[in-house]
Amino acid sequence: MSREFFATRTVAEALVGFNPALCTPAQTVPLAQALGRVPARDVVASAPLPGFARSTVDGYAVRAADTYGASEGLPSYLDVVGAVRMGAQPDVTVAAGTAVEMPTGGVLPVGADAVVMVEYTNETMPGTVEVLRPVAPGGGVVAADDDVTAGAVLVPAGRPLRAADLGLLAAAGVIEVVVHARPRVAILSTGDEVVPPATVALHPGQVRDAIASALAGLVLDAGGSPVPCGIVPDDPPALRCALQAARAQADLVVISAGSSVGARDSTAEAVATLGKPGILCHGLAVKPGKPTLLAECDGVPVIGLPGNPLSALVVFRLVGAPLVWRLAGCATPPPEPSVTATLTREVPSEAGRRDVVQVRLVGGRAEPLFGASALLSVLTRADGYLVVPEPATGLDAGAHVSVTLYR
Amino acid sequence: MSREFFATRTVAEALVGFNPALCTPAQTVPLAQALGRVPARDVVASAPLPGFARSTVDGYAVRAADTYGASEGLPSYLDVVGAVRMGAQPDVTVAAGTAVEMPTGGVLPVGADAVVMVEYTNETMPGTVEVLRPVAPGGGVVAADDDVTAGAVLVPAGRPLRAADLGLLAAAGVIEVVVHARPRVAILSTGDEVVPPATVALHPGQVRDAIASALAGLVLDAGGSPVPCGIVPDDPPALRCALQAARAQADLVVISAGSSVGARDSTAEAVATLGKPGILCHGLAVKPGKPTLLAECDGVPVIGLPGNPLSALVVFRLVGAPLVWRLAGCATPPPEPSVTATLTREVPSEAGRRDVVQVRLVGGRAEPLFGASALLSVLTRADGYLVVPEPATGLDAGAHVSVTLYR
Repeated sequence: MSREFFATRTVAEALVGFNPALCTPAQTVPLAQALGRVPARDVVASAPLPGFARSTVDGYAVRAADTYGASEGLPSYLDVVGAVRMGAQPDVTVAAGTAVEMPTGGVLPVGADAVVMVEYTNETMPGTVEVLRPVAPGGGVVAADDDVTAGAVLVPAGRPLRAADLGLLAAAGVIEVVVHARPRVAILSTGDEVVPPATVALHPGQVRDAIASALAGLVLDAGGSPVPCGIVPDDPPALRCALQAARAQADLVVISAGSSVGARDSTAEAVATLGKPGILCHGLAVKPGKPTLLAECDGVPVIGLPGNPLSALVVFRLVGAPLVWRLAGCATPPPEPSVTATLTREVPSEAGRRDVVQVRLVGGRAEPLFGASALLSVLTRADGYLVVPEPATGLDAGAHVSVTLYR
Repeated sequence: MSREFFATRTVAEALVGFNPALCTPAQTVPLAQALGRVPARDVVASAPLPGFARSTVDGYAVRAADTYGASEGLPSYLDVVGAVRMGAQPDVTVAAGTAVEMPTGGVLPVGADAVVMVEYTNETMPGTVEVLRPVAPGGGVVAADDDVTAGAVLVPAGRPLRAADLGLLAAAGVIEVVVHARPRVAILSTGDEVVPPATVALHPGQVRDAIASALAGLVLDAGGSPVPCGIVPDDPPALRCALQAARAQADLVVISAGSSVGARDSTAEAVATLGKPGILCHGLAVKPGKPTLLAECDGVPVIGLPGNPLSALVVFRLVGAPLVWRLAGCATPPPEPSVTATLTREVPSEAGRRDVVQVRLVGGRAEPLFGASALLSVLTRADGYLVVPEPATGLDAGAHVSVTLYR
């Protein structure tokens, strides 16, 4: 099998073509564990909220008509016939010429259609209130279904749950949510030179596995669940076997494919033997990250990442993270922070290729960090990255660029 | 005690003045649990990385001088004296006129000072390689300390750990990190009308506790650990007792202070009796969210939030979330996503007050969502919010505004 057999794709083509139909199964989680999870279906209100006409101010429940024409000079005088207690049905009603004391959040008594704010009243004599301004019907009140009507969608399927969503669900008495399971992402590292991070003394030529830990972080960021699958030597049968085991316990398999040509080829071969339809593309029009393999084997997507840590992480952000969201039922990943900055120096690029350039921000200026894609420290020193899109042949010094920020 | 006794503060003043000196204690966590955690001290490299001169390309290790003047028309001919295996010390050396086969990531053999890419070579006769382009000393190679020098800071104290940081730590053999404990944030709800979210049938006037669940989400977003402390009735001794219990088990106490004037006053009284220096301000120049109480009681910060869910969540985002980060040792919270949009209609405001307006984004246009601050659905329908800063008296329709996006 030759690498040349497979076409290079743009990132956009890869995202369209590499779009497994399946989502993870639904599961029920308590509200306290639902932040960031993706509802598998719309959650609908069984009853209106707040459920009763409710005062939004401290003041007096009145008939609005009784306040028409009221002013500082000529107040309306109303008899105070009682007070509403928080959390209880009022035991008084409001008739013409009367008012009832209201706390914010109290139930509007029968007969009243508005609440006058306490700031616009005087209670100069016990039992009588002077209203100094008119209030319109509905003033100072939310209706029983102003927040949510019965049957309305509280939170939609497909959008990760935010803090406010949890509040609205709690208000509606929904204490469990049916969400997509976190996509399990198997992370497999290859290379005869790669040893576990816990290795204290390295032999000459050995390197500790950096990619697996960093990928696990990106998987968590994308709402997935990393499944560490260890390190496999550059040995085709061992690799096939490890890939098969990884696929069996994951919704997505990510393999850092070894950095040498030989290692890359054996990954491609192992993937190709694993199932249908097999390899979708071998080569992404992105720098760093060209030697990327995208495959689907019997319904499980497989990403073969370049062996260099920087390249691997750039590609996983571009292609892997959106896929993890999609597997969880979320078509549009949450937005990422960004900032506009002025480029300090020219950035060369090639037309037809997407360049991802790590940058440091210094006072509103974006300073590109160059360095071999083998260097992980370029990534940890960066505040974010800029993208030179496919049609451009580079960016000039002084250009205004959008920098996606790491958080 | 009168509310008028305490000055209203701007958000900026509150953030400066409300700045407890203490951070949470340090604890050691394994790398796999360190994402987003804040290192309590700089983590330093004990050895250089990658630790050996390493090839960045597939090709041939050479003496650069042997390639000077090489071209397609007049190649340099070198004797191939061996090959480097991945992950092993080379068992050959490179003398003048010789070359050694190199995989990407292999150890540079003694005697070589560069690697020629395989693309610029021909191996037409077994045992001899034609070099078609010159390579400079250091070409195709990263030096033993190019990624990290011994003693360099791998990750700095005070910045939440990102995915790439985990990779660099793993590469350096650091498998545990000393980080600040997640700030424990006690969440206490008050109000005679407030019942637990699990309550199936509400009595007239009752509402389920929405704020606690939403606040727990915001606390998690800020890297904190929510400590649910339940619901207290509007009863001063019960409130004092609950506050004391909450303070004992938390680094920050957040209390949704009841929405009526009476409830707010009893919160202030309970806080004032709790310890020194007591109340710092009662009133924030922000809409919604004015009736906010900020206090510090014997070293534990206390935030009394407005009783309305929308106001409470707006204030916690502005004041509470940065404080949670600070308690974890992070002075500058991670950036939030934002986008520039065109305002569809005028937004009024008052000079001297910060207005936080929920907006919906429709094709690059920001549509303000108005509604009583009692309505939680305003927040769940919003894509983000815009801020009208203190000096402005409003924003015109058509203005370009920055919208902070919910994610």
